Amino acid sequence: MQLIDGKTIAAQIKREIAEEVQQIIARGGKRPHLAAILVGHDGGSETYVASKVKTCEEVGFKSSLIRYESDVTEEELLKKVLELNNDADVDGFIVQLPLPKHISEQKIIETIDYRKDVDGFHPINAGRMSIGLPCFVSATPAGILELLKRYNIETSGKHCVVLGRSNIVGKPMASLMMQKNYPGDCTVTVCHSRTKNIKEICLQADIIIAALGSPEFLTADMVREGVVVVDVGTTRVPSSETRSGFKLKGDVKFDEVASKCSYITPVPGGVGPMTIISLMRNTLLAGKKTIY
Amino acid sequence: MQLIDGKTIAAQIKREIAEEVQQIIARGGKRPHLAAILVGHDGGSETYVASKVKTCEEVGFKSSLIRYESDVTEEELLKKVLELNNDADVDGFIVQLPLPKHISEQKIIETIDYRKDVDGFHPINAGRMSIGLPCFVSATPAGILELLKRYNIETSGKHCVVLGRSNIVGKPMASLMMQKNYPGDCTVTVCHSRTKNIKEICLQADIIIAALGSPEFLTADMVREGVVVVDVGTTRVPSSETRSGFKLKGDVKFDEVASKCSYITPVPGGVGPMTIISLMRNTLLAGKKTIY
Repeated sequence: MQLIDGKTIAAQIKREIAEEVQQIIARGGKRPHLAAILVGHDGGSETYVASKVKTCEEVGFKSSLIRYESDVTEEELLKKVLELNNDADVDGFIVQLPLPKHISEQKIIETIDYRKDVDGFHPINAGRMSIGLPCFVSATPAGILELLKRYNIETSGKHCVVLGRSNIVGKPMASLMMQKNYPGDCTVTVCHSRTKNIKEICLQADIIIAALGSPEFLTADMVREGVVVVDVGTTRVPSSETRSGFKLKGDVKFDEVASKCSYITPVPGGVGPMTIISLMRNTLLAGKKTIY
Repeated sequence: MQLIDGKTIAAQIKREIAEEVQQIIARGGKRPHLAAILVGHDGGSETYVASKVKTCEEVGFKSSLIRYESDVTEEELLKKVLELNNDADVDGFIVQLPLPKHISEQKIIETIDYRKDVDGFHPINAGRMSIGLPCFVSATPAGILELLKRYNIETSGKHCVVLGRSNIVGKPMASLMMQKNYPGDCTVTVCHSRTKNIKEICLQADIIIAALGSPEFLTADMVREGVVVVDVGTTRVPSSETRSGFKLKGDVKFDEVASKCSYITPVPGGVGPMTIISLMRNTLLAGKKTIY
């Protein structure tokens, strides 16, 4: 069993991006600029955005944080999105989700210029990904692909079982893993809450991508020897073992599943660290105008 | 075994659309208008477009056929697309594929206003479909969904195996069948040329959608009793039995598979007749501005 060390890979990619930024600057190029809109004071969102801003600094990006109180109107937010669309200095930007209930997330997302949509949530990016055209792939799926790549995990002709059909992980992962590409070229099965024989299906998998948000769902009796397991779950469960009073649990019962795997991502330290770094990679691509 | 009679269903929907058009006109509304661009003289394309124009007449739509010789420049074609985008009388339009090699199909498709993209090929429509938002679903997948619906075929929790991963059938079908919807809510497996154990997977299927373009690929030993089979294949094979000298063959070895099925679509007369009618339905939706 080999542990897929997302933390180390993310740190390595961070150095690669920082180096490329230095080269761009040395050549007289423009410093990539990521802007983030944060509405309200949700704890999780605050943490994520702070971490994104910090990582921008570390790789040498310019970053802008635009804050609104949670009573901001949809109109005001849309106006800011349009402003960022037209701001030539901003290469890419994100609107941190979730948004307050009185604002339509979908409307905000669709107003973002898809060429600056480094979160990859705009329908054009989702559609281009499905068709197999160059696009911004959203951070978690992009991070997972990168892990598979960096560990040279064979995917062609493998049976990849995706647990979960969310718009941000399950569906894009399924779409990516079936493309004629590396990583990809898999036979892909998507399971979800309505799936009847999930254990039977998992037992056929060469690769399992678990993104149900159901702590320790995948147990040892559900996987066969040599499987590759990617655990996307991150559920906070109460814990007396940590100072914070909670612990992050993945969708995989790691202790019993790990020994059967050829490769497995831990939680934390697997997919998680790759997410922010994939956003940075997208911002770099936006800055270099590689995709659009 | 029940035969899924696409010809009869298509005729029924044609009457429904014609009635709705009459009602729209009676209320003083605008007659839906479909425009089609046809480049060159490819036999298949000529037949398809003629059939689309004829069906427009039958349901009471206005139709416009715009023809170009195959030496038309990309620029000229793009200009026409923009003109149709801006023509308020045109509710929806299609550019018949394939196009000559010197013209980028993708560029043409992406230039079409997605709100008039009744073929559903624009990345915005593909992306919105994947996300589960209202959109123009391309004709073949839409036709298949309609057949499942009209025959009240249960899909929730069923295992749907899609054979093929093309952008016009395999991928959208997979995407639609996994949505939390009816028809949908299936566990979905996508198989393709790289799949190793396709027989084993097909034997687990409750529903098989065969879209490989490989004549008589699916044989009786690959399906279990009670399966629903949708055959999207239409390959012309030489035949001495017909006056034309060829015969349409599906992806399913109908003679031996049919008796094991609960439902099966024949070729011809199954999915085929639904395709044009789905384009008509999309044009009606465009005329009524139901989606955008």
